[in-house]
Amino acid sequence: MNVGTIYGVGLGPGDPDLMSVKADRLLRGARNVAYFRKAGRTGQARKIVNGMIPAEAMEIPMEYPVTTEIPVTDPRYNALLAAFYEDCTQRLKALSDNGEDVVVLCEGDPFFYGSFMHLYSRLRERAPVEVVPAITGMSGAWTATGDPITWGDDVLTVLMGTLPEEALATRMAQTDALVVMKIGRNFDKVKRALKTAGLYDRAWLVEYAQMPDQAVTKLSEAGDKVTPYFSIIIVHGQGRRP
Amino acid sequence: MNVGTIYGVGLGPGDPDLMSVKADRLLRGARNVAYFRKAGRTGQARKIVNGMIPAEAMEIPMEYPVTTEIPVTDPRYNALLAAFYEDCTQRLKALSDNGEDVVVLCEGDPFFYGSFMHLYSRLRERAPVEVVPAITGMSGAWTATGDPITWGDDVLTVLMGTLPEEALATRMAQTDALVVMKIGRNFDKVKRALKTAGLYDRAWLVEYAQMPDQAVTKLSEAGDKVTPYFSIIIVHGQGRRP
Ligand SMILES: C[S@@+](CC[C@H](N)C(=O)[O-])C[C@H]1O[C@@H](n2cnc3c(N)ncnc32)[C@H](O)[C@@H]1O
Ligand SMILES: C[S@@+](CC[C@H](N)C(=O)[O-])C[C@H]1O[C@@H](n2cnc3c(N)ncnc32)[C@H](O)[C@@H]1O
Repeated sequence: MNVGTIYGVGLGPGDPDLMSVKADRLLRGARNVAYFRKAGRTGQARKIVNGMIPAEAMEIPMEYPVTTEIPVTDPRYNALLAAFYEDCTQRLKALSDNGEDVVVLCEGDPFFYGSFMHLYSRLRERAPVEVVPAITGMSGAWTATGDPITWGDDVLTVLMGTLPEEALATRMAQTDALVVMKIGRNFDKVKRALKTAGLYDRAWLVEYAQMPDQAVTKLSEAGDKVTPYFSIIIVHGQGRRP
Repeated sequence: MNVGTIYGVGLGPGDPDLMSVKADRLLRGARNVAYFRKAGRTGQARKIVNGMIPAEAMEIPMEYPVTTEIPVTDPRYNALLAAFYEDCTQRLKALSDNGEDVVVLCEGDPFFYGSFMHLYSRLRERAPVEVVPAITGMSGAWTATGDPITWGDDVLTVLMGTLPEEALATRMAQTDALVVMKIGRNFDKVKRALKTAGLYDRAWLVEYAQMPDQAVTKLSEAGDKVTPYFSIIIVHGQGRRP
């Protein structure tokens, strides 16, 4: 019997029309569809493909363990996640061993800060894995602002809102164009860092880029409410333009 | 009569299978297809869509003026390019005024260091323009290496090989993950900067990512020949991974 291939399929920022032709084809022909989600939630990746995957496809939800009580720096946090990823890996490998192809849904581009990478690094020596790149959330976000992100030889820096405030402010002050991801509860910290770096007034907040609830706001007019998980802050470069 | 829309359509890194469903649909239905090229060349964007656009579509090649004799810092360089972009803008606007939609082919993502941006900034106040985001060349490149680009809260920096050596080395030394574009004649300078920053041994060279001639090489084994225009250097981040 042949072994099956595990496809890490990037879905892009959220609009099914922005999926690649290859992703579209793999989804519509899928027999097994795996995706991460929080316990009791639909999961964003699964939502994006609603109506696209065959009714008879087997669905394999992979539910994150609850880690909210454990600090990220606690070794138990890592241990819990590592056990979870190992468990998912074994489920997918078992399907592959049985000759089944599996499509794993990935938000944005799989190799760009993606969860699938934790399965990929475990699976790659044990089963055939193929990664299908996709439009990143940040491409979706800067397109939504209606202004190009980088010109000429602008430097682009991508930062996670989870970094310490000082690190954020230092990096921000050194770049021409900026993308900040993972905002959520880090919103106030990120805003303070932008002010320190002198970029606050040029920053845009993009929520749900290329999704039905997309919202683009000047950061200085965005108010103080916690932003959704799918939020990106953009500061456009101002490089050379003939 | 209605005015037509000018679509800046990102084609992704080069494999037609990696175009978005939307780009694919716009191309196959196009009546007017515009693209940049060097005088006497086919142009990479036009090559990518070979066989996809309708035989009866009108093609509008936009040929870059020859600037090789003029230093980039010379004001004549900018003036020549500005006149060229203004001329292209007027050609596309005339079509739009006549009720014609136009598809402008863009390599990678249009708003990420793209030439279309120079038409977009001139057209946006004068005609309906819509931008279709796409997979960037760098996503194509890191996927080709078979390793994720960023983990945890890795900082990603994107640099153009056209920057001065010192600026390159300084930025490289400060980042976790790195992408360098526009290599070509800057290859030796970029390599020296990578050595200064201590990243040379971790760097990969990806030529023609997701195109038929794709080549992935450890930079230290790549030799000294000038790299093609479609080359990207990648240094993978090594952030937290449970
Ligand atoms: C774990 S990372 C995954 C990134 C994804 N692999 C990509 O290529 O964009 C999650 C973060 O991506 C950003 N993100 C991804 N897609 C987005 C979208 N459509 N709109 C806004 N933010 C998005 C948010 O900042 C979110 O916190
Ligand atoms: C003017 S920039 C255009 C970037 C494009 N808009 C994008 O989103 O990737 C041209 C540079 O992009 C890089 N590039 C774009 N596509 C590539 C590919 N498929 N393979 C290698 N390099 C690529 C090269 O470094 C090249 O010098």
